[in-house]
Amino acid sequence: MNISIIGTGLIGGSMALKLKQKGLASKIIGIDKNEKHLNEAKSLGIIDEYLPFDEGVKSADLIIVAIPVDAARIILPNILDLLNDKQTIMDVGSTKDGIVKAIKNHPNRPRYVATHPMWGTENSGPAAAMADAFTGRAAVICNQEESAEDAVKLVQKVYNALEMNLLYMDSEDHDIHTAYISHISHITSYALANTVLEKEKEEDTIFQLASTGFSSTVRLAKSHPEMWVPIFRQNKENVLDVLNEHISQLRKFKSALEKENYEYLEELILKANKIRGILK
Amino acid sequence: MNISIIGTGLIGGSMALKLKQKGLASKIIGIDKNEKHLNEAKSLGIIDEYLPFDEGVKSADLIIVAIPVDAARIILPNILDLLNDKQTIMDVGSTKDGIVKAIKNHPNRPRYVATHPMWGTENSGPAAAMADAFTGRAAVICNQEESAEDAVKLVQKVYNALEMNLLYMDSEDHDIHTAYISHISHITSYALANTVLEKEKEEDTIFQLASTGFSSTVRLAKSHPEMWVPIFRQNKENVLDVLNEHISQLRKFKSALEKENYEYLEELILKANKIRGILK
Repeated sequence: MNISIIGTGLIGGSMALKLKQKGLASKIIGIDKNEKHLNEAKSLGIIDEYLPFDEGVKSADLIIVAIPVDAARIILPNILDLLNDKQTIMDVGSTKDGIVKAIKNHPNRPRYVATHPMWGTENSGPAAAMADAFTGRAAVICNQEESAEDAVKLVQKVYNALEMNLLYMDSEDHDIHTAYISHISHITSYALANTVLEKEKEEDTIFQLASTGFSSTVRLAKSHPEMWVPIFRQNKENVLDVLNEHISQLRKFKSALEKENYEYLEELILKANKIRGILK
Repeated sequence: MNISIIGTGLIGGSMALKLKQKGLASKIIGIDKNEKHLNEAKSLGIIDEYLPFDEGVKSADLIIVAIPVDAARIILPNILDLLNDKQTIMDVGSTKDGIVKAIKNHPNRPRYVATHPMWGTENSGPAAAMADAFTGRAAVICNQEESAEDAVKLVQKVYNALEMNLLYMDSEDHDIHTAYISHISHITSYALANTVLEKEKEEDTIFQLASTGFSSTVRLAKSHPEMWVPIFRQNKENVLDVLNEHISQLRKFKSALEKENYEYLEELILKANKIRGILK
């Protein structure tokens, strides 16, 4: 099977590596407006060749859209226009409700499967790609009833090859849950970085004192705006809802400290400790 | 040299393992009011034997205090009372100004060296200890001019054996910098855990969808209150100062989203991205 990957960065590149390794793809075709990425992806063995947009889409049995969610929403109808009923297209964006609604009435809607593999790092570009990135993680398929059965089956095969655990959700529910579990972590981390950069004027001290704990909490703050502004924009209402809750949770810590109510502080911490049991 | 470790948990245990491995300690004596920890530490080869408090203190050339900062501040004067001028004592707590001031006028003050190795995990107890924990991390010595020269030299030898990079600071400065770089990360992480636990009522969904990003940002929320309430308490003013800044940074994200000002959102993210260059 020929697979065309639109966007040969971290996610598209990692998928390409694994799908080739697993023998699911006989040929990987790269499509990217960033020519440097295409050349890099080719020399890293991520893609076998690259083609212009129309030709690349037409040459593929499966097309994987792995670009920022705003660009994906714009490009998807154009790709659907080009497809025949043997071809399948999937996207891998972190917001699902907008894109699903944008093509709801497209005659080729059944060829599209809305998905979200729950993996990423703070890095980007083909050089950051890794074949075993997805193993053991969750992947979500949204609104499968709007997709053709054979298209869903193919996408299931893809996620099995990526060794991911499949979940099925309504696109609205997906966007609520990802706001809670993924998007807010990024805002927390960005705001923490800005806090430290604001307070700690001696950059050398940050570098020297940074512990593993700080590095872990602030890691996501390295993530690029090209990917994250569109996600926050598309999921604005849900993100704002959880951000308001987060600010109110922080105010509880503030109040416990201001009032020197250390029993309450302990209570807040013990509540947070419950995440240990849930995460594993 | 005989080394007595008061508190045979994560930090004390990790130090014991490495100092034995490096040949700096001929014998490690455990002192702990938690008898289960003592037995566990002995069976894990972390300590060679354990002794009651007075006897354990008197048998050591070097005493390492590795217990929560409130207990350390209470116990330190009692230990200093017992010491002769060939013995050295160091603590490893995450706040330094209070403890240093508490024993400022003790006749045996010069035998004490105030230190803080910048490493920890969300786990605790002897079973969490690991010999190479500290390698390449920073360790701070505070107010070295108040300690005897030979005591400081011995402690420097300890941190060299632990393969840490030594920094020297005033205890007040130390507490300000650690509020910025370590303590606030814990509050951020606790509050994030509580946010998600509040919003996401389906614990199964948290477990299934949790990405590496969320796990990384929320990792510190597993840290125990026995260690962290005393730290926040002792460093209340500095922690409140940085917590206020953090809440105001989060409000900027909120305002950018509410006003749909995505240029400003991008600006905030690009600012946060600078942490990449600083952390390496």
